[in-house]
Amino acid sequence: MANALVILADGFEEIEAVTVIDVLRRAGVEVTSAACTQRHVTGSHQITVEADRLLDQLWSSSEQRFSEPFDVVVLPGGMPGSRNLRDDVRVRELLARQAAAGQWVAAICAGPIALEAAGVLAGRRATAYPGHALPSAKYTEERVVVDGRVVTSRGPGTAIEFALTLVEQLVGSAKARQLREGMIVS
Amino acid sequence: MANALVILADGFEEIEAVTVIDVLRRAGVEVTSAACTQRHVTGSHQITVEADRLLDQLWSSSEQRFSEPFDVVVLPGGMPGSRNLRDDVRVRELLARQAAAGQWVAAICAGPIALEAAGVLAGRRATAYPGHALPSAKYTEERVVVDGRVVTSRGPGTAIEFALTLVEQLVGSAKARQLREGMIVS
Repeated sequence: MANALVILADGFEEIEAVTVIDVLRRAGVEVTSAACTQRHVTGSHQITVEADRLLDQLWSSSEQRFSEPFDVVVLPGGMPGSRNLRDDVRVRELLARQAAAGQWVAAICAGPIALEAAGVLAGRRATAYPGHALPSAKYTEERVVVDGRVVTSRGPGTAIEFALTLVEQLVGSAKARQLREGMIVS
Repeated sequence: MANALVILADGFEEIEAVTVIDVLRRAGVEVTSAACTQRHVTGSHQITVEADRLLDQLWSSSEQRFSEPFDVVVLPGGMPGSRNLRDDVRVRELLARQAAAGQWVAAICAGPIALEAAGVLAGRRATAYPGHALPSAKYTEERVVVDGRVVTSRGPGTAIEFALTLVEQLVGSAKARQLREGMIVS
């Protein structure tokens, strides 16, 4: 069974975070949501979600590394959530190690600014919410972009497609098709 | 400014609940989320959300009525969330009074079974997640159905369309169009 880490910073975009957790769990992926600062995290539309863990609980400070491997690390967007992710050295470190280990990283909306800051977009095709520059990437306006093991997407309206793309990659396209139908995606 | 009540029962569908709260708040609607039993409510995919209020805090037991009027009462789907809504006498009472006062009621996925139990679907065109019977309604398979002041829809994949339809009715179609574009809905 694949596993995923979804990181929740204060001011995360709620539709994007909840959609990816919900859809990946429907697909049988073991999802851990981890909060940057405190377990109860309030999103950019004043919805408070209780994260499963604190990011610090996953970090071994003696070894200066995350204690668990994840098949994918996912960043929701939202403001100031995306800036908080970008400015968190633990998040950047995790993303860089994840990419260096050949594992998946994924971000939606403004979330890709943290991928950019972690240096994992260099030369890759990627997208983000309009207006967010990704200077090291080959920017495109597709709704969901997969290049190597980097998945990026654009906003709340693309969150289900983004999540189903992760399902396709981590579980398989049969499961993604089944969920698409079961969730009544157009 | 319009106001909305979104009711969260244990086992609610997270995408549906969060999408409607998020999108209505983007539109400037004042949204209260109210929990049936305790403030921290866990959905059908193990995501825990902190509701703004308890349903009992909105109920005046001396007057046997809800203390605040809402322009719309919205029910997310999910199981067992939808059954819990249907079996809660306060929810049925609220829906019946809401409809009798000519105010909006709305439900998505399995949520319409609570509208059916409250008697507010009689003779109306309505939809629900496949397999949920609405014997008093004229059942259709459209993704979002508006009949009078009753809005129904089908599942997580129709949640944004459902929420934008509520925005259209409560705030106006210009705002709905603006959000559709801003959220990058296809």
